[in-house]
Amino acid sequence: MKVVALTGGVGGAKLVYGLAALLSPEELSVIVNTGDDFDCWGLRVCPDLDTVCYTLAGLANPKTGWGQQDETWEILKKVRSLGGSTWFKIGDNDLATHLRRTELLSEGETLSSVTQKLCSIWGVKHQILPMSDDPIRTIVHTAEHGELAFQRYFVQLACQPVVRAFEFCGAEVASPAPGALALIDKADVVILTPSNPFVSIDPILAIPGYRQAIEKKPVVGISPLVGGKAVKGPAAKMFHELGIVPSASAVAGHYQGLLRGFVFDTQDQTELEKIERWRIIPLITNTIMRDAQDRIRLAEEVIKFCELVLTRSL
Amino acid sequence: MKVVALTGGVGGAKLVYGLAALLSPEELSVIVNTGDDFDCWGLRVCPDLDTVCYTLAGLANPKTGWGQQDETWEILKKVRSLGGSTWFKIGDNDLATHLRRTELLSEGETLSSVTQKLCSIWGVKHQILPMSDDPIRTIVHTAEHGELAFQRYFVQLACQPVVRAFEFCGAEVASPAPGALALIDKADVVILTPSNPFVSIDPILAIPGYRQAIEKKPVVGISPLVGGKAVKGPAAKMFHELGIVPSASAVAGHYQGLLRGFVFDTQDQTELEKIERWRIIPLITNTIMRDAQDRIRLAEEVIKFCELVLTRSL
Repeated sequence: MKVVALTGGVGGAKLVYGLAALLSPEELSVIVNTGDDFDCWGLRVCPDLDTVCYTLAGLANPKTGWGQQDETWEILKKVRSLGGSTWFKIGDNDLATHLRRTELLSEGETLSSVTQKLCSIWGVKHQILPMSDDPIRTIVHTAEHGELAFQRYFVQLACQPVVRAFEFCGAEVASPAPGALALIDKADVVILTPSNPFVSIDPILAIPGYRQAIEKKPVVGISPLVGGKAVKGPAAKMFHELGIVPSASAVAGHYQGLLRGFVFDTQDQTELEKIERWRIIPLITNTIMRDAQDRIRLAEEVIKFCELVLTRSL
Repeated sequence: MKVVALTGGVGGAKLVYGLAALLSPEELSVIVNTGDDFDCWGLRVCPDLDTVCYTLAGLANPKTGWGQQDETWEILKKVRSLGGSTWFKIGDNDLATHLRRTELLSEGETLSSVTQKLCSIWGVKHQILPMSDDPIRTIVHTAEHGELAFQRYFVQLACQPVVRAFEFCGAEVASPAPGALALIDKADVVILTPSNPFVSIDPILAIPGYRQAIEKKPVVGISPLVGGKAVKGPAAKMFHELGIVPSASAVAGHYQGLLRGFVFDTQDQTELEKIERWRIIPLITNTIMRDAQDRIRLAEEVIKFCELVLTRSL
């Protein structure tokens, strides 16, 4: 079975870790949100790409969900002492990634090619593609602060502002990364990982070509909300602020028209009726991933579920 | 006496250190070559500016003539492990400077303003100006390798290629840094420090406005060559390759039409006749600066000599 997974950081990266443990590089490819990329100290920082790559490389910090484990912070301290902005925490190992990426980009390489080079050094065998080589920037429209660049909202303001809408600047004129649509075309199933629907998956779907390619395929989504709350991050808060009660079915509703199957948590058993009414095949299971074993267990269930969805699609 | 010093890195920076120890910030301003600035890992690196600032701040590495003392090299190692280019050695403390500078430049600040901010943090009280806020890049025309960006020639190829000519790309459309011409205008004397005439002082003189402003002032130069050899760097080799016998008088000849006074080493006593024939007032002394005391001693002699030159000009 060939799988393409669409993902952001943290939650999505955890499931991708499980999938990569079970599927070969021929069977699994990953397309990653770059809408929250930004420039820090003049360097290109790609938080979701890095989280996914670090996670697959075994370099990720399991506690934070971002950055590398066993990280040191010497340069951050030095830059702070020179008056530099340090609200975005760049560790020394992480910094080397951004330096090398920025160097390669400045030499004219594409983000796809840079990602491939770094993955090969890190020993990541599965294909990890940025959603696009073109710049796309997620803008969060907020009640109090107007338009905010994503990382200002997400990190500097700690998701406090009330969101009104999201905008993916540049998406309409961007192209999917080279090979991305072909991978989807060849895939048996597309997985929407348990990442934030608004700011991790939607930016990918906003690029012309992705939605059309995905609509032709059986799509399986996994809810990032459990018991109406996000395992991590502002997803539930965002649903609330947009006037939608956060729930597994709200996530399924968000992806309506795309989903053939939907995985949600046993805590959300009561959502089953709604999901089935939308003619979406359900899988109710424990979706919380506390450790590597959880990730692999959930990935295994998701893969089996995809096979089931495929049989039912025939 | 108000002095403006034109300088590059190393040798020039040493004399500037001595001058700064003797002259107040009202009496001494420094204009620094930026022709060897370049981008490394996407960061703006200004080697001469940094050498001058680090030297005045007491942060410079006295052994290398570049970079900071007590430097660590963690990030360089990390970037190397990611396949990054590391022929230009950026230490961790130095890196913080480049990160902060690049951050400020990317926010739209000028190099002058960035330099001022960093100097204020480092406690450097004398005004240090980049020669220009506009990009100027020294290109070395060589026999074997054609046109080389300065740092490729200087660091990566260790000055090995035979030079044919120098070009200061962008100089003709660049402007002197804000305030630079006014400082020269108010100065009693302009000092050409013992930096490389071809690649440290000439880039400054190539910017429209400087030469005209300096020609109106008594100019005192200090030879970077002692006994036909450069104390450090490729100056003598360059003279050779351009078909000129390297000597103190060759340096004076290079600045002909500008110099009112010229300081050269006791080892070059035999050059005296030539210098005097050009109606340049000579000062023969020990010009080698091994330690801080040497720098201050030479600066003191240079300042007294400037006063003498001024009396003779009246």
